[in-house]
Order: sequence, then structure tokens, then C-alpha cells
Amino acid sequence: MTIRSKNSDKETTRPSRRQVLGGALTSGAAVALGGSAAAQSNDIQSVDVVVIGAGASGCYAARELSRAGHSVALLEADDRAGGRLRRGEVNGEPVDLGGQWWGPGQTLLDEVSQGLGLTRLKQNITGRSIIDLAGLKFEYEGEVPALPDAEMAAFLEGVETIETWASEIDPQAPWSHPRAKEWDSITCTTWMDQNLGTDFITAFFKFAVKGVCVVDPAQISMLQFLFYCRSGQSFVTLISTDGGAQQEVFKGGLFQVPQLMAEALGDAVHLSTPVRTIAQDGDGVTVTAEGGTWRAKRVIVAVPPAMAQRIHYDPPLPAMRDVYMQRAPMGAVIKCYVAYDTPFWREMGYTGQVFFEGDANVFFEHSLNDSGKFALVAFMDGEAVLRWADRTEQERRDYVVSEIVRVFGQAGANPVDYTDKAWSADQWRRGGYGTQPTPGAWTVTGEAWNRPVDRIHWAGSDTSAVWNGYVEGALQAGKRAAQEVADLL
Amino acid sequence: MTIRSKNSDKETTRPSRRQVLGGALTSGAAVALGGSAAAQSNDIQSVDVVVIGAGASGCYAARELSRAGHSVALLEADDRAGGRLRRGEVNGEPVDLGGQWWGPGQTLLDEVSQGLGLTRLKQNITGRSIIDLAGLKFEYEGEVPALPDAEMAAFLEGVETIETWASEIDPQAPWSHPRAKEWDSITCTTWMDQNLGTDFITAFFKFAVKGVCVVDPAQISMLQFLFYCRSGQSFVTLISTDGGAQQEVFKGGLFQVPQLMAEALGDAVHLSTPVRTIAQDGDGVTVTAEGGTWRAKRVIVAVPPAMAQRIHYDPPLPAMRDVYMQRAPMGAVIKCYVAYDTPFWREMGYTGQVFFEGDANVFFEHSLNDSGKFALVAFMDGEAVLRWADRTEQERRDYVVSEIVRVFGQAGANPVDYTDKAWSADQWRRGGYGTQPTPGAWTVTGEAWNRPVDRIHWAGSDTSAVWNGYVEGALQAGKRAAQEVADLL
Repeated sequence: MTIRSKNSDKETTRPSRRQVLGGALTSGAAVALGGSAAAQSNDIQSVDVVVIGAGASGCYAARELSRAGHSVALLEADDRAGGRLRRGEVNGEPVDLGGQWWGPGQTLLDEVSQGLGLTRLKQNITGRSIIDLAGLKFEYEGEVPALPDAEMAAFLEGVETIETWASEIDPQAPWSHPRAKEWDSITCTTWMDQNLGTDFITAFFKFAVKGVCVVDPAQISMLQFLFYCRSGQSFVTLISTDGGAQQEVFKGGLFQVPQLMAEALGDAVHLSTPVRTIAQDGDGVTVTAEGGTWRAKRVIVAVPPAMAQRIHYDPPLPAMRDVYMQRAPMGAVIKCYVAYDTPFWREMGYTGQVFFEGDANVFFEHSLNDSGKFALVAFMDGEAVLRWADRTEQERRDYVVSEIVRVFGQAGANPVDYTDKAWSADQWRRGGYGTQPTPGAWTVTGEAWNRPVDRIHWAGSDTSAVWNGYVEGALQAGKRAAQEVADLL
Repeated sequence: MTIRSKNSDKETTRPSRRQVLGGALTSGAAVALGGSAAAQSNDIQSVDVVVIGAGASGCYAARELSRAGHSVALLEADDRAGGRLRRGEVNGEPVDLGGQWWGPGQTLLDEVSQGLGLTRLKQNITGRSIIDLAGLKFEYEGEVPALPDAEMAAFLEGVETIETWASEIDPQAPWSHPRAKEWDSITCTTWMDQNLGTDFITAFFKFAVKGVCVVDPAQISMLQFLFYCRSGQSFVTLISTDGGAQQEVFKGGLFQVPQLMAEALGDAVHLSTPVRTIAQDGDGVTVTAEGGTWRAKRVIVAVPPAMAQRIHYDPPLPAMRDVYMQRAPMGAVIKCYVAYDTPFWREMGYTGQVFFEGDANVFFEHSLNDSGKFALVAFMDGEAVLRWADRTEQERRDYVVSEIVRVFGQAGANPVDYTDKAWSADQWRRGGYGTQPTPGAWTVTGEAWNRPVDRIHWAGSDTSAVWNGYVEGALQAGKRAAQEVADLL
């Protein structure tokens, strides 16, 4: 196989539409095309590694391999790089329509983003936050609500149980815990309904599952939740702002991380190139996409399993892998930015953090890059997403604004701008933040989770043992997959 | 749009490889191909309806539409018609590697199969059957095991609860039951662990879920199980032989039903034609497959949701539909035929029916079309499938024979023939018997289950309110989808 250097061949070998056809054809069909087809077999582009999906994970894997001297083609179905990180804009300021936060322990994201010249801003924690759940409404400062004694005792007991069990999970193999089968057979809803002390605390923990995993707690098992907590250090880490996973945002937006990596990869990146088929043989792998055909030694599939299963594999994937993907759907989230002239909540003494019942049930403040302008970010998650994802942006805007008014009064009635992103409606992602394996999936098919299938390696945050579902996990998985491949090239 | 009659056009218009390319191309690409492409837009084949998937459901829908005078193209990815019904052979006799039984209440299958000239044979119930579960082993005659009193009381109480609740489910809208959310939030495992009287009865009911739904009871909710029972009349119907869903087999094999329907459809059937894209516009729908492009007024997708989601849709499907498909994976089953010189179990006084613990945990006798030859059919289901689907047929054979020996002794040690089918390894089916929505799927996304998306209609047993997962359901769904379409043509 001829290995071309990464940057030398695109201008001359990027296939025309006609060449693409040649690449996708069998030799018999090439003959049918007549003499003009004869040269086309040369138009299959050869690289060391094809990476599929230009999200943070795919970009990082491609960058690592490229820096190590391997030639790479990074194929992205969408017309932009970034995956579940995406630029939006409100009131003239760039915002993250997808992942936005950084928290302590996310060391690779820290390193990579600093290398790209990005800086961070603290998530505002000055003022009072609001919780209004299960008939109990109160305001509090700092991270831990000042709960009534009985509620606090139940809260601490629930936290201790979850933290203890989560700490026992091996994040590389959550199915290996002695109680894995038990925990994978019970939904989070059932476990929480039956094991937490009060109605409010039960509602609070189910709310936390919804907020963190963006999935209805009935749709995942206790094992998946424990794994997710363990993978992201702890339950308290995941739900905390200061000291936790929501501590800081990136000035200008976290979406810049994959965007800048993709820009640096230059001609190796092929946008609007959805992959249709991955064919392996004894010598290598042929990746056929709309827009071209690539031949490589190895391929890294850096899209979530729910999307990876929509690629056609030849030979077919093992049953274990296929069934794992069938049972590993995406979470569901809609992220809504509502921009205001003034941060009226600050003037009222609030942080902007609100946790309450409704279809847009979590608010955070967004300082719009310290521009002096402000927005509230509202999240819809789980079941609510399916009620809103297929409606218009205007309908969602009207609803979200009405909910802000319900919480803060008429001060919130007149936003100056709005934007949102319904990830479940995004045809190349079909959900977010990440993969949430269904009950019984880990213990039956977990082994196939991120194990390579011959020349196919799996990346994406969804495959990461650490910070699964987070951008840190995406980068870590990209690093791990790149290493797997590099060791075999 | 020009409507060609069903049988007149195939010889003249079946596209060459070159023509196929033209059909698949955008107009811009056609221009790139130069003058020779100009004629290719004529090579898109026009029909009233494209049906995707030549299983029992797709074949029946195509037959209904064709008989009503509509032109149809029936596209099948595999190189044979039949879907989850498939011909196998042991000891010179045809056998069903997929669905095989008929039971009372399956009226459309009765009508259709009689119309095709098929006859049925009774499943043998003469002799003693064996149950060996949870430390309790016994033999019994007839349908109901002669259980110890305490077990019998627990059994009857469990049955009554399930039958009562199942009878309350609206099979057209299982999410509409007042307790739907509660039942969709608890796994079958949890409900059965917590609500059945004895260890044996708990094991028995979980075994029944596994056997009927071929899925681990942790992987589905109580709501899905209740729906499945309601859809197939009742829990007792589904687990019974005489008077139930395993009462009779088809002489020569049930696989003949789709096979004969497909043969009668003649040139309308296109095998080895996997569909890649379904594109809708204001005037119709364009279906692009490997091997051709079709233009139609409507399309019926008669493959399970887990496979239907692997087609590319333009415009993208609504979020509700896509997320439903993500959460509706296939059950898992391997069916193994072990043929013997003599029915040694009959000579020992047994029916051949055995229900016990192991990876091949259900046996039935098969009389091989009353040929005088006999086989045992062994089923692997749920988790066990993933342990065996990626191994060799020889390994499975050795294991299954060893299990037969464990039950019946050395009489079973020397089969004369063996064949099996691991449905989870079948690239165009990836499981069986049918779809088993995951916990929380019905109540969040159930509305999208079988609701058309503009010009796309959904068939397949998986979409049927009656006899969901059974061949009767496949035919009923085909009939319903054909009617939906016919009403709009």
C-alpha cells in the first residue's frame, strides 16, 4: 500500500464526483463504465488511518496520529467540525450550543485548550440559587442547599450510598462488579423510589439523574448511573458548580477546541462526507463515503454507537458489538440561550441557577464571554425533549421565556435574543450529551463497548472509561484510540 | 409521474450498474458524468409504492397493493425473501430456522397459509414434559405442571395479576394506561423479584419472559411485557402449546408463506437490494438502493426499527421517530435443530419439551414434517445468545448436544444431523423474534411507534398491535400498512 504524506496529496487527488463513483464501484462496475473508468482505481485515497467523526475525540485522535507522522483522513458527515460541540450566537456573542463547562480533574481538556490559546471564566456562584421540587421550594447560597434536618439526613445517606458504590465500580469494566447484574437489572427510578428517605430527596436524586445523564431515570439502570458517577469522579462532582463539573466556561466557547484542531489538520479534514461503508480485508480497510473512498491500515470510528451502527460494515460486525450498539442510545437534551439587556436575576440577588419542575427545568447564567452582556441558559432533558424537539424554535422560545417569567417574574419577559439546539433532531448526532446504555446492556454486551473489531477502533466520549459523556472523555478516548492504532501501524 | 404496470417493465428497465449510478446521483453529478448521463434520469423506476423488506409483512403488503391494482417494487437486502422466516434443512427435511408455529386466534396466517396450500401438524404433546428450575425438578403431562400447593397458589396469583393488567392494556396505545408510567419504569426482573410468591415461581416467570420475548427480563419494562401478552391475547396463550401459540407447525415449513408470496410477486421483487436512502419531497419519495433507484408515491418500511434506523432519511426523520428507533432493539435468539435416528425421548415417555437452566434452555420436539424422522429444537435466548452467536456452528452443536445428554442421557449423544441460526449475527435482521422496546421507551416515544412520517409507512410484526412479534402480527401489520397507503393513493 502506498502511504502518502498527510499534506501533499489533497489538491491533486481529491476526487471529482466522477472519481468518487469509480472509487465506490466494484471492478465489474468499473468495466461497465468503459475506458474512462480505467484510471479510477487510482483515485482511492490511501492513508495510514481514517478517522470518522470530527468531534473533539476524532479531531484529537487525528491530531495525535498526524503529529506522530502517520497520514490521516478525518471524515465528517456534517458541514462543520465539532460534533456535539457547536457554535451558536446570541446578542452578537458566540455561545456553546453543546458542551460548555470545565471542571477540576479534566486534565487533558485543560492541557489541550491551553495549547490552543483558550482561557476560562468562572461560572457565577454569587447569590442565591433556587430549588423547587416535589412541593418543597427554597433558596440557598453555595453548593449545598440548607435542607430541613430530615431531608438533609436523607440526602447525605443517599449520597453516601451512591458514592460508596460508584467508587467500587471499575470504570474500565463496569460489568465486573460483584453486584453488577443486580444493579443492571433495576432502573434508577425503581432504585430511587425504593431506597431514598423522603419524597423530596427521591425527586431530587431523580432530577439529578435527568440533569446529569439527560435521560429519564427509568431509561437507565442503577449500574449505568453508578458507572457514570465513577467515570466522572463522583456524584457530587457531577452535580456541583464550584469544585465540580460546572465550575468554568471557556471564553469564546468550548466549541473552539475541535474547531481549532480541525483547522490545524487542514486538508486532512473532509467535511460533508458521511461514511456509508467500512469494508475490512486481510490487508486493510476501505472506507466508502459520499464524496470519496479511502484505503487505510486502520480506522477509528469516533461517533457514538447509536450513529456508528448506521454505517454498513463488511464483513458484518460480531453479534456482541451490534447488539451493544442497539442497546446504547443517546441521551436527549435541548439547550436554550435567552439573552437579556441586563442580568436582572443578579439584581434580585440570584446566581441564575434554578432547578425546578417543568420541561425546561434547569437554568444557569451565562456571562456571554464577560462581554457585559448576559443570558440565561435553560436545559430540557429526557422526556421533555421529545415533546419539544420537533416543534419550531419560536414555540420553544415562547415556552422557555414563559418559564423564566414563572420563576423570576416579568423581569424575564423581554429577552433581546434567543437561540437553541435540539440535539435529538440533529441528524448526525440524534441526541446528547452522550450514550446511555439501556438496562441490562452493560452486563450482557458491555465487553463489546470499546473493544476493537479487527481493524476498527472505537473512540468518542461514549467509549471513555474516564469522564464518559464529557469533553474530557472525548479527548481521552481519542488519545486511547490513537495509541491503540499507533501501536499496530 | 408515470405509473408503469407491475409486470411490464422489469426486463426493459432494470438498471445496469451504470444506470444505477445515474439514478443515485444528484443532477450536478449527472452533469459531471457528461453526455452519457443525460438519459439516466429515465432509468429511475417508477411505481406506486416501494415496499422495503421481503419478510412476511412486506410480502403481504406488496401482495395486497398489487392485487388492488397498484404497481409495487419490493426491495430486499438479502439474497432471499422471508426475513425472520427462513428455510433450513436437517436430515434431508426442510425446517424453519425462524418462526414456525401457529396457534388459535392467528386468523390471517390461517387464511393466507391455506390460500397458499399449506397444511399444519400438531405439536406433539403426548408424554411427560420436564421443568428443572431454581432447584425444583419435576415431570408433568399436559399444559399445567402439577406443582406443590404453595407453588401452585403463587403461580395462579402471578398469572391472575399479569392477565388482569394485560387485559387492561390498549394494544394500539400501551402508553395510555393510567399506570403506564409506573410499569414502564420498572424492569420485569425487578417486578418479578418483588411481587411473586416463591423463588421457583419467580424463576418460572422470568424464564417465561425470556422464552416468549427472547430477551433478558432486565432489558424490558413490565409495560412491554404486559403489552406483549395483551397483543398475543394473554400470557397463558403465549406460553401454551395445545390451545396456545405453539399448537401447530406447518408441514414443509412456515418459511413457505413469504417465499410463495414473493414468488407470486415475480418481477416486483428485487433481492440483494439493500436500501440506503429514502428521500421525500412534495411530490413523492425516491428510494435509493444498491442496485437501483425507485420513485414512488409512498413507501412502506417493513423491517424492524433497529434496522430501519440504518437507512438514511432525507429530510431527517422527526426526533420522536428516531429516538423511538434508538430505544427499540431486537430480542436475541439462536434456534438449533438436532436430528436423531429415532425419537428416543418418545420411547422414554417424554414429549420432548424441556424447560431448564442453561444456555440452551428450551427444547421442543420437531417431527420433521411427519417424515418419520425426528429432531429436537433447542432455543438459546437473551444473554446466552451473546455468548454463542459469534462462535462456530460446531461449538454450538457440541454444547447443545451435551445439554441434551445432560437431560436425557447418552441416548441423545449421537445426532445424525445439526443446523442452527444465530439471528443476532444475521446482518439484515440482527436479532429476533421481534422488537423489544427498552424501559421507558413506550411512555416517552411510543407515539412514533407505527405512525407514518409523511409518505413513509411502517410495517413488520414489530409495528403490530395484535400478535406483535409473531407472523400473524407481521401479516396484520402488512395489511394495515397496505390499507394506509391504498387510502392515500
